[in-house]
Amino acid sequence: MSAATHLLFLSCAWACLAASFPVTQNHMSDSARRRAVERISKAAGILILAAGQGKRMRSSLPKVLHPVCGQPILFHILRRVKEAAPKASIAIVVGHGREKVEEAVRAEAEFSDLSIEFVFQPEQLGTGHAARCAMEHPWGASLVKAGGAILVLPGDLPLVPRNLVEQMTAPLGRTDAIRLMTCELPDPTGYGRVVRRGKAGAVLRIVEERDASAREKAIREVAVSIYSFQAVFLKHATERLSNRNAQKEYYLTDLISAASRGKRKIDVLSWPSAEDLRGVNDPWELAQATRILNERNVKNWALKGVRFTDPWSVQLDVEVEIGEGAEIHRGVVLSGKTRVGPNVIVGPGCVLKNVEADEGAHIKTGTVAEASRIGKGAQVGPYAHLRPESEVGPGAKIGNFVELKKSRIGANTSIAHLSYLGDAEVGRDVNIGCGFVTCNFDGRVIDGQRKHRTVIGDGVFLGSDCQTVAPVTVGAGAYVASGSTITEDVEPGALAIARSRQVNKPGYAAKLKSRKS
Amino acid sequence: MSAATHLLFLSCAWACLAASFPVTQNHMSDSARRRAVERISKAAGILILAAGQGKRMRSSLPKVLHPVCGQPILFHILRRVKEAAPKASIAIVVGHGREKVEEAVRAEAEFSDLSIEFVFQPEQLGTGHAARCAMEHPWGASLVKAGGAILVLPGDLPLVPRNLVEQMTAPLGRTDAIRLMTCELPDPTGYGRVVRRGKAGAVLRIVEERDASAREKAIREVAVSIYSFQAVFLKHATERLSNRNAQKEYYLTDLISAASRGKRKIDVLSWPSAEDLRGVNDPWELAQATRILNERNVKNWALKGVRFTDPWSVQLDVEVEIGEGAEIHRGVVLSGKTRVGPNVIVGPGCVLKNVEADEGAHIKTGTVAEASRIGKGAQVGPYAHLRPESEVGPGAKIGNFVELKKSRIGANTSIAHLSYLGDAEVGRDVNIGCGFVTCNFDGRVIDGQRKHRTVIGDGVFLGSDCQTVAPVTVGAGAYVASGSTITEDVEPGALAIARSRQVNKPGYAAKLKSRKS
Amino acid sequence: MSAATHLLFLSCAWACLAASFPVTQNHMSDSARRRAVERISKAAGILILAAGQGKRMRSSLPKVLHPVCGQPILFHILRRVKEAAPKASIAIVVGHGREKVEEAVRAEAEFSDLSIEFVFQPEQLGTGHAARCAMEHPWGASLVKAGGAILVLPGDLPLVPRNLVEQMTAPLGRTDAIRLMTCELPDPTGYGRVVRRGKAGAVLRIVEERDASAREKAIREVAVSIYSFQAVFLKHATERLSNRNAQKEYYLTDLISAASRGKRKIDVLSWPSAEDLRGVNDPWELAQATRILNERNVKNWALKGVRFTDPWSVQLDVEVEIGEGAEIHRGVVLSGKTRVGPNVIVGPGCVLKNVEADEGAHIKTGTVAEASRIGKGAQVGPYAHLRPESEVGPGAKIGNFVELKKSRIGANTSIAHLSYLGDAEVGRDVNIGCGFVTCNFDGRVIDGQRKHRTVIGDGVFLGSDCQTVAPVTVGAGAYVASGSTITEDVEPGALAIARSRQVNKPGYAAKLKSRKS
Repeated sequence: MSAATHLLFLSCAWACLAASFPVTQNHMSDSARRRAVERISKAAGILILAAGQGKRMRSSLPKVLHPVCGQPILFHILRRVKEAAPKASIAIVVGHGREKVEEAVRAEAEFSDLSIEFVFQPEQLGTGHAARCAMEHPWGASLVKAGGAILVLPGDLPLVPRNLVEQMTAPLGRTDAIRLMTCELPDPTGYGRVVRRGKAGAVLRIVEERDASAREKAIREVAVSIYSFQAVFLKHATERLSNRNAQKEYYLTDLISAASRGKRKIDVLSWPSAEDLRGVNDPWELAQATRILNERNVKNWALKGVRFTDPWSVQLDVEVEIGEGAEIHRGVVLSGKTRVGPNVIVGPGCVLKNVEADEGAHIKTGTVAEASRIGKGAQVGPYAHLRPESEVGPGAKIGNFVELKKSRIGANTSIAHLSYLGDAEVGRDVNIGCGFVTCNFDGRVIDGQRKHRTVIGDGVFLGSDCQTVAPVTVGAGAYVASGSTITEDVEPGALAIARSRQVNKPGYAAKLKSRKS
Repeated sequence: MSAATHLLFLSCAWACLAASFPVTQNHMSDSARRRAVERISKAAGILILAAGQGKRMRSSLPKVLHPVCGQPILFHILRRVKEAAPKASIAIVVGHGREKVEEAVRAEAEFSDLSIEFVFQPEQLGTGHAARCAMEHPWGASLVKAGGAILVLPGDLPLVPRNLVEQMTAPLGRTDAIRLMTCELPDPTGYGRVVRRGKAGAVLRIVEERDASAREKAIREVAVSIYSFQAVFLKHATERLSNRNAQKEYYLTDLISAASRGKRKIDVLSWPSAEDLRGVNDPWELAQATRILNERNVKNWALKGVRFTDPWSVQLDVEVEIGEGAEIHRGVVLSGKTRVGPNVIVGPGCVLKNVEADEGAHIKTGTVAEASRIGKGAQVGPYAHLRPESEVGPGAKIGNFVELKKSRIGANTSIAHLSYLGDAEVGRDVNIGCGFVTCNFDGRVIDGQRKHRTVIGDGVFLGSDCQTVAPVTVGAGAYVASGSTITEDVEPGALAIARSRQVNKPGYAAKLKSRKS
Repeated sequence: MSAATHLLFLSCAWACLAASFPVTQNHMSDSARRRAVERISKAAGILILAAGQGKRMRSSLPKVLHPVCGQPILFHILRRVKEAAPKASIAIVVGHGREKVEEAVRAEAEFSDLSIEFVFQPEQLGTGHAARCAMEHPWGASLVKAGGAILVLPGDLPLVPRNLVEQMTAPLGRTDAIRLMTCELPDPTGYGRVVRRGKAGAVLRIVEERDASAREKAIREVAVSIYSFQAVFLKHATERLSNRNAQKEYYLTDLISAASRGKRKIDVLSWPSAEDLRGVNDPWELAQATRILNERNVKNWALKGVRFTDPWSVQLDVEVEIGEGAEIHRGVVLSGKTRVGPNVIVGPGCVLKNVEADEGAHIKTGTVAEASRIGKGAQVGPYAHLRPESEVGPGAKIGNFVELKKSRIGANTSIAHLSYLGDAEVGRDVNIGCGFVTCNFDGRVIDGQRKHRTVIGDGVFLGSDCQTVAPVTVGAGAYVASGSTITEDVEPGALAIARSRQVNKPGYAAKLKSRKS
């Protein structure tokens, strides 16, 4: 038995599975999906083309790393792949900015259990060349050997859904060399048209806009650069690809006519949603894709019981989570791994990054917070600023124009107005007046630290316009008079005062106002 | 004369009116409208179905109480009813959360002059069952007795316009049992199709999506759950309704075939705008309805001479009023009974609730205000925060990062920077420097009050970084030196000073910076 | 040779040029464009109709002065005219608010090299009357004499593109009296329909909606109030116009039938984009035009390498410039001549007017700035407020709730929290603590100045909650202790302190809290 026959045999075995797994099946039960995934993944290869420069992006960042809703475009694809075919053998063709791409993928924990190879494409000579590089790589060889099929996905399609990957990785029919994804467009201008035998017969070739006859230009079924190939076919066909064209590049589209000429059958999967297939080639398309994915995501949360007063004005990263009954007002931006608990209110214009807000918290207009936690039922804002490593205790109140940095605020404590707390530990039931400042830096470096800690015990009352010069401790239950600069520790229960006595000079105001300097 | 004959007679009398009042009439003069309303209202019943749970809303609030542009969905319908048929006899069928619904409607003053009955539907067994409950209620009986007609409206249609109610409450023709509202949809999937005799003949029945033949599915005219019935017909027909269907529920749609089989005539009112008929079944649809109503409302104000720099980014509650020449910038949220006077400028991102801003006031970027008043030509913000019961006098200036709470600020007074005034009474022509704080709470309770008042007379000059410890009075024309903590009253015209003398220690800075703690 | 023959001769000369300059040519090389412009401009007149009141605008500002993306509507047209036909002889017909219109145009430097006449139309008797006023003016006479052609443009079309002006000012054919611009609309309701001989034959007349037969109403080709006329034709034809119509006005549309009846040929330019031709008649249409122009502008910057996280939420005036790699977040408003350098980040909700931000600056959430400069790599915000004439040095940091006014901040200086600096000169490497205030006004007027200057030298350390009472100087390297009110100059290198010593009273807090006043 020759290698080729052997491969053919394997692909027949695959085809038998296909019979019980129709490509068009869209809604599977979870267990059916799991079983399907098990079967598919045995010899499924997924080839992601991510080597292009993306010149029109006008950025040094490789195109596939540009973020859409908080995640690089490439990560969106890898997540869909992970959901649909977690055991697939994945190759990512890299070229421009290859180190950045490899580094980014490797650093992401959730892809650590995927089987990912990086294939280097030294020059960008077209999609056909990229595929040839992959087939010449041990990755390609092993798939050929295993008699597998390979789904080729452009790396710049952030909106590809899971079921597209599922349907494209479903086993090819025994005699099919290719499954071609197509889409009907109202206006196909600029796309490669799918030329068939007769009106709806077998696919013959893809014809590019510039080469299309008037009759061909009228075809509204276009190719969308997504294919599944029998690995062995892809191997042999890419070896024979020619670059005799205007761009001197090797095109995967040419494999369609190659298969057709070689009497190999081409399965077609016509995708109903052109939106799913949007590519990103410039910053405008990046923004459009972001808008679409954002709206899908926001709608998803709305249907889970989150109330958005104006969903189209809200930006959510894909990893954000929001509890039922939460209310998200207009212009809110939630990014990173922000978690908003049930019944939390996030007021207009809040910008939260990696923030945890517990049940029933109320985050008021324009609050900016990062890497912080807001306790159950706490109130924050309007216009509060929580810098990283801040923690607001349950029931506490952080009011307007208050800045926290690396500070822990105890339960039911109130810091209601115009204050700055940095490197502070504040107990519970503390009342801090307006204009309080922790002087955490006094220009000196102590033990290698520029910033010093302030400790304020439970139940302290701090009058308005006080400052504490750190390091300093105000003991539990102490009382600090308004207008005091506290430079020394205050014992628990003590009154501290550091201000001048008031002097009134009757009739002096008019004199003063008329005085010349 | 039997009761039935008697009723028939009355409905004939009605039909005579109908002749001079064509259903399709859309644009009536105000006096014509008034006369029409008078005639209609005599025996017009309006039945609003508001008993459903709205499971998909994922909320404990009854569906019809979810707010759209600041008002519960049900209130939008009641307002349209009040405009179109103020004397109609209204019944609201309640079930889930009935107490909340009844309480909300009863508490709203503007519905106090409507005749509203609440009909309890103990179990939600379908729209037909809801109508039967209403017809078994004295409300239904009296309409039957009066020979009236009943408009049935789902309680979850916040966009229904006044003229829809007008046209549906216009008297039924003498021989008509039902007026059915329909709508042509480009994509009717999911809706009950209107099956007619021939292409455009009499209506025979409504067929649900699941029961529709391929030919019926192609029908684009759908029923929209809005009907007018002769009361006597509704009474008898709902008594005979069956629940032999998959859901075991009683459906109003079945009354169409009942009428048709009983040779009763069905009038059809085809509504041109599908948008008007949008229902709210989940938080996403709630947001969509809000967007549509908000845009209608914003456009309405724009046409009255309000300038919106980006109307689609602004949120207006329906009770908000705005004067000609006002300028509303992007991202503004105006809610409650906010009134913005003529030529007022509301800068980007302002959030105003129940605020009155008089002519020519300038409210700058990001100002948050609630239950406050801003005088003629006053300037507020950017990033000012007016908490409830604040009043800014004409020509006064409240600058950035200033918070007012329960405070009255006199005319032409300036509080330009970083200050907090709580429970304060400030005169006119006062100049308050940066960083002023009214210490209105010192941890003590005096006469049962935690917060104490600060009084500042006309023409006072308060230097920067002053605090006044309340209760305290600074007399008219007094001068308070920067950096003073004022604990005692200052006489009018006096200079008050409470700070330490400055000491300079030459050459000491370097020593200090290098000092180790 | 009579005058008329003479004119005819000249227009023939023009026609010869036309042969080599086809009207439909859309994409010209820059040099071709330049040459074309040269040739055209010789005897090209452009007549802009700007006399109307714009009643529906509900504003005392003349309609053409209402701003779209930061520029009066009329200026958008003049700019397109300047680009397409810089040497054209321009007339603007003014009436309502003529002084304001003339003043605005004359004050704008970029129009100073255009040839602009103002023609006064004392009463607004229709477009035909406006044109007659212009033709009776020496402006019109000189164009007649020169054998020129005149492009008539309504003054309320802010979206007209350059190439429309180019194509409409391209020489008329020898025998053409008029070039009529038309547009195909899916719904032509309300527009004047273009009636032709047969289906696509010569234009016969424009018929208004109210006068159109059912067959005419079905015509989807409409006139859009843009025409080019042979000057001599326009002169004679407007003299003969009649106002025998319902409005008793003179209409330019009537010139079409006049030409047709007089066997004069009418060239037609069908414009593909109805959007380009949108007029502004009320504040809603103003907002719609603004949205379209804004999106075009934002998209243009995106394609040049600017990253917008939500382009549809951003407002850019047309004169704003943004560098490659800059990141503009949601809800940002950039107005006036704001210049954002390469790789600058502008966070959510920032509002910048006439601001220059140098490369790599980071302007954080909600910062408001006007007429200020932000240096290379500087950080500003969140919620900083830069009032006019402020300058932030390279690498400096202006933090939250900080207000600058007429102040210069040196390189690498930090003013991180809750401070106000007005009329200050701050050196480099200065550290200013939280709650600092320059008391620039103390109620006195010195040498005619109300506000006094504060000077802070290089390397100064200013503790938190300090105030400096201006005029005052803190010398280089000085150190000011927290809580000090500085009223006298501090020598370089000195330590200044002006606060009270702290006193602790053990056990006194509880007593104080329980004290009754």
